[in-house]
Amino acid sequence: MNINVLSLFPPMFEGVFQHSIMKKAQEKDAVSLNVVDIREFADNKRQVDDYPFGGGAGMVLKPEPIFNAVESLMQNSKPRIILMCPQGERFTQQKAEELAAEQELVFICGHYEGYDERIREHLVTDEISIGDFVLTGGELAAMTVIDSVVRLLPGVLGNADSPVRDSFSTGLLEHPQYTRPADFRGWKVPDVLTSGNHGKVDQWREEQTLKRTLERRPDLLDKIDLNDNQKKTIDQLKEQQ
Amino acid sequence: MNINVLSLFPPMFEGVFQHSIMKKAQEKDAVSLNVVDIREFADNKRQVDDYPFGGGAGMVLKPEPIFNAVESLMQNSKPRIILMCPQGERFTQQKAEELAAEQELVFICGHYEGYDERIREHLVTDEISIGDFVLTGGELAAMTVIDSVVRLLPGVLGNADSPVRDSFSTGLLEHPQYTRPADFRGWKVPDVLTSGNHGKVDQWREEQTLKRTLERRPDLLDKIDLNDNQKKTIDQLKEQQ
Repeated sequence: MNINVLSLFPPMFEGVFQHSIMKKAQEKDAVSLNVVDIREFADNKRQVDDYPFGGGAGMVLKPEPIFNAVESLMQNSKPRIILMCPQGERFTQQKAEELAAEQELVFICGHYEGYDERIREHLVTDEISIGDFVLTGGELAAMTVIDSVVRLLPGVLGNADSPVRDSFSTGLLEHPQYTRPADFRGWKVPDVLTSGNHGKVDQWREEQTLKRTLERRPDLLDKIDLNDNQKKTIDQLKEQQ
Repeated sequence: MNINVLSLFPPMFEGVFQHSIMKKAQEKDAVSLNVVDIREFADNKRQVDDYPFGGGAGMVLKPEPIFNAVESLMQNSKPRIILMCPQGERFTQQKAEELAAEQELVFICGHYEGYDERIREHLVTDEISIGDFVLTGGELAAMTVIDSVVRLLPGVLGNADSPVRDSFSTGLLEHPQYTRPADFRGWKVPDVLTSGNHGKVDQWREEQTLKRTLERRPDLLDKIDLNDNQKKTIDQLKEQQ
């Protein structure tokens, strides 16, 4: 997969793109990461933003540098062109899986400024938000989306790196996990986990998964098909509450 | 504000912490950012994770290195101790404002592994998730939270940097913005914005703000107190749909 990122602050990406999974994914040729400085596609004054028509505070990113930068990347391809912005579709694991199936992605990151609306109307294919909070720019949001997409690409996550059990992949939150020491400052691991009884361990984990989801994210329970055992457990947990 | 981050990959933070607002905020002494390598608080084998009790795939972060690292930072203070994890409370702008009022924050970032439950039960004060998607680690989630908090600290955002109009600060999405050229490839700026009639510009923007919120995030309209004019506009917009 080719991933291109348009930013006014390319060096922001260095730490994240050169370590851990991103580094491995590039070494394995699973992904090519390319950060483009929007200013290189501006006019000779390197001006990338301007005052908003109609007045008001703040600056607005001009259309030309963004169109020119994106079009320079589209010689032989029709990539998904993703605008990172708070007004966009909320990013989810389903969207990560959808993007992981693409050949090429372009991310546009604003910084401080708003975007000229014509970028939204005539250039981008997707607008994505990572949540209802305000960031200095789209860079961290883009890195977040890219991390979640790249880890899904074939060959990127070795067995050693695979998550214990991805929350959201089952539609439920993960049960508690414990490792050594069995007694840490007097706080002990639940007996069942050291019992050696695998059936009981599985039963405890299933129960804890449902309990945690019920306590923290009851909305998730409405989104999946629970089996009869799970429904019974949930009814019991609700009685205990 | 003092912000400490515990991570297994400290260099991941370099690009983000040394540019843009993070750099300025540190130069202005509004924030001190300190990244701690969890491995330095592990035993002499530098082991930070171990197999889960009860079996299963994946590794679990051991309690000792995390407790030791956090406690080394708590000599004279009682900071908020924040675990970044998909099971946590969903991060919002309200939470950013709450954290921005603190003197000291500690962020714990897992990577690949799950956390030993005793970290959750006996050490942390907050568990935060930035959304329903899976990341390689908590680092990008922590950077995201830190960016949204630091930009709220007094003196950090100068007027020149202030966002056009923060989405979420009004509870509504922002209206479209346009800047020069007025005609870009035949796509023109709406006439009202170049009319010089400020009353009409304000009215158009108010309408567009409501229209966009209704189309993209109708859930936000239920969360704020709309005035009579706004309610009337929304009724009209619904009729047009």
